[in-house]
Amino acid sequence: MKRALAAVAAASAWAVLAQTPPALPTAAQSDPATLGWMQGSPPTPDKVLRKEDGSFYRFPQLRWTFSNARQFGPTTNVSRGPGAPSALPRAERTDLDDVAFTPLGRSERMTWAQAFDANYTDGIVVLHRGRIVHERYAGVLRPEGQHLAQSITKSFFGTIAAVLVAEGRLDPEAKVAQLVPELKDSAFGDATVRQLMDMRTGLKYSENYADPNAEVWMHVRAGNVLPRPPGYQGPQTFYEFLQTVRKDGEHGGAFAYRTVNSDALGWVIRRVTGKPVGQVLSERIWSQLGMEQDAYFSVDSVGNEFAGGGLNTALRDLARFGEMMRNDGRANGRQVVPKAVVDDIRNGGDRAAFPQASYPTLPGWSYRSMWWVSHNAHGAYMARGIHGQSLYVDPKAGMVVARYASHPLAANANNDPTTLPAYQALAEHLLANPR
Amino acid sequence: MKRALAAVAAASAWAVLAQTPPALPTAAQSDPATLGWMQGSPPTPDKVLRKEDGSFYRFPQLRWTFSNARQFGPTTNVSRGPGAPSALPRAERTDLDDVAFTPLGRSERMTWAQAFDANYTDGIVVLHRGRIVHERYAGVLRPEGQHLAQSITKSFFGTIAAVLVAEGRLDPEAKVAQLVPELKDSAFGDATVRQLMDMRTGLKYSENYADPNAEVWMHVRAGNVLPRPPGYQGPQTFYEFLQTVRKDGEHGGAFAYRTVNSDALGWVIRRVTGKPVGQVLSERIWSQLGMEQDAYFSVDSVGNEFAGGGLNTALRDLARFGEMMRNDGRANGRQVVPKAVVDDIRNGGDRAAFPQASYPTLPGWSYRSMWWVSHNAHGAYMARGIHGQSLYVDPKAGMVVARYASHPLAANANNDPTTLPAYQALAEHLLANPR
Repeated sequence: MKRALAAVAAASAWAVLAQTPPALPTAAQSDPATLGWMQGSPPTPDKVLRKEDGSFYRFPQLRWTFSNARQFGPTTNVSRGPGAPSALPRAERTDLDDVAFTPLGRSERMTWAQAFDANYTDGIVVLHRGRIVHERYAGVLRPEGQHLAQSITKSFFGTIAAVLVAEGRLDPEAKVAQLVPELKDSAFGDATVRQLMDMRTGLKYSENYADPNAEVWMHVRAGNVLPRPPGYQGPQTFYEFLQTVRKDGEHGGAFAYRTVNSDALGWVIRRVTGKPVGQVLSERIWSQLGMEQDAYFSVDSVGNEFAGGGLNTALRDLARFGEMMRNDGRANGRQVVPKAVVDDIRNGGDRAAFPQASYPTLPGWSYRSMWWVSHNAHGAYMARGIHGQSLYVDPKAGMVVARYASHPLAANANNDPTTLPAYQALAEHLLANPR
Repeated sequence: MKRALAAVAAASAWAVLAQTPPALPTAAQSDPATLGWMQGSPPTPDKVLRKEDGSFYRFPQLRWTFSNARQFGPTTNVSRGPGAPSALPRAERTDLDDVAFTPLGRSERMTWAQAFDANYTDGIVVLHRGRIVHERYAGVLRPEGQHLAQSITKSFFGTIAAVLVAEGRLDPEAKVAQLVPELKDSAFGDATVRQLMDMRTGLKYSENYADPNAEVWMHVRAGNVLPRPPGYQGPQTFYEFLQTVRKDGEHGGAFAYRTVNSDALGWVIRRVTGKPVGQVLSERIWSQLGMEQDAYFSVDSVGNEFAGGGLNTALRDLARFGEMMRNDGRANGRQVVPKAVVDDIRNGGDRAAFPQASYPTLPGWSYRSMWWVSHNAHGAYMARGIHGQSLYVDPKAGMVVARYASHPLAANANNDPTTLPAYQALAEHLLANPR
């Protein structure tokens, strides 16, 4: 059965990191609306997606799942509160579709309009100086729908942790064991909060999805994000799994992207605030930004949110978060996040600690408080999630791009060539052609 | 194991219909916030509620579950749309708490304030002529939270079916098999749509929760509302279960309250509209009334909403629905439901068909389009759900009461004595003391 589940894993998109199959179905060929997943009364058996058999997470089925994650397990709400949504003024432009760029490592040009399908985009919103200049949806995502944010989730909690630090409620130099004694004997025990926030911990934790024995599989099975094999005897919750993580090397060294740091940080935030992280996210962000819709979280069997990647949001609300960051932490006339926190994120992490992580599409970048910082001439920085989720903030151009996608390949190295230069070209176009 | 599950059933509140245990814990003793279910990081094992072992549906645990149903399984969203919530002006009054009434079958008086805890109320909103004159929450329900509506769900779909009839899109005299051929060989095949809507079908379907062999158990297990025994081989979805229901007697006779009629009606609505009923509810009601929050549905393994009782809403949004009914179907300057539909519901069903159903607390009432109609001097009518859920519309007094509760006993006969006369007394008080 372990074998069978490994086969499921191998068949899932999480397993195909960095290797391009001979021919991927196009966006049109894999359109979840056309393919009719879960449609009909009842849907025919071949159109039913299930968590138990792993079908919900295979490509192209995952193109439906990413807009309907709540249909596959328990969730909690992230309330926007009872008020009216904040205005997102509209000034849509028709000139953006023709903006051309050269994809990384290629010679032929591509347009912004062509990139939409090339990146298996489910929805994209571009704000320029706070106004919607471009908005488009495809597949089964709608403005009133919610999409899996994947690891963009992390940037929300990196930001919140930084806010708690700024308020003096969280000591970034405190050892995790001081705050969460249950983690004393785990790898996290002698890591500092700041090391978690910047993912500079020495952990025996592989995020290589192609390896069925990688610890990331134990992690997501413990949290019930992916199905468990029958007779599964492993950790039952995120809390239990976190306590099993062992050290490998020293903390404070090179940046190493490991989702488990975010869940450990989530536990720290829970302990410091005394509240579920979904509630903290509601109080600190969702109810403060005039969000249009509630967000929601996938939770494990004891109601613990998947702080490493379980958030689902409306696309425009993701854009509102980026716009608040662009505005030095201000939104709707209030300072929601201290300017010093935004400045610190924008300034980035230790650039010397980044190259060892080997991200060929991100040369010269750094990682800070669970944000990816480009250090380019525009000072752009990003929240990123597998399969093409991105929130791109370009301070110089006054531009925010929020994109949800369901790319067949998990690793963003597969879409960076046709997203990052597109964002840069659009930023330059908006700078040169303001309206 | 069947035995074990029957024991779970017997221990659940659904099983204690109409029999008063010697001593029920009070509202204060059973307060889910005080008892700390699912609180802590992590919660201690004795505070964890689970679906698998039935603990989520036992009393007093269900007091937490009713405000957190989404944590126990898959759900779908009922979108409010992107607009601003409609205003619910506030004119709170302090005189209502002292309004006194005589509970049915008792001699001592009780006040409105006392009834709050006596009915294990989680939240109550009273509108008088469209303004909030009273609003209170307890336990773990908050204005920004959502609560299980139980069978109040039915009244939404009875109303929507009546709207489809009024629009000529649904023939109330059509046989169900004409619309849903899959139900041809079931009991529903030769029932008319109107007979479903008024629950005047002859079905072999017991809703006696004390009987572990009652068909209602098969129904909710098929839809995964309650846990299945290991090795369960029965129907896997609501669709499959509906096809197994057999006839008992003739259609068109006496009213007999059976939840399965609502799920059959749900299938009819799905087939007629070509949409999931949650989407229909969003388009027809939720996005039309300026709802404050999205609602959500528990769904079965193929994403089919539990039209008989799986809706969860914010309390104020339930009140908004009642207020639209009170205003002859109008809300926010629009005719959301045709006045003729509201009139027909208010006029009630065949009163002669009602008494056989034996509701001692509802003398002279009738049932129409999945609403309960009092035929009292005020023309009051209700949506009702087990454990004390109620939406009470009193046209003469211009009053709407929306109440969510988690009474230990499922049957509303247990709370009617301390709710129905309270509503009547409040209505008379508001009539006599307008402001």
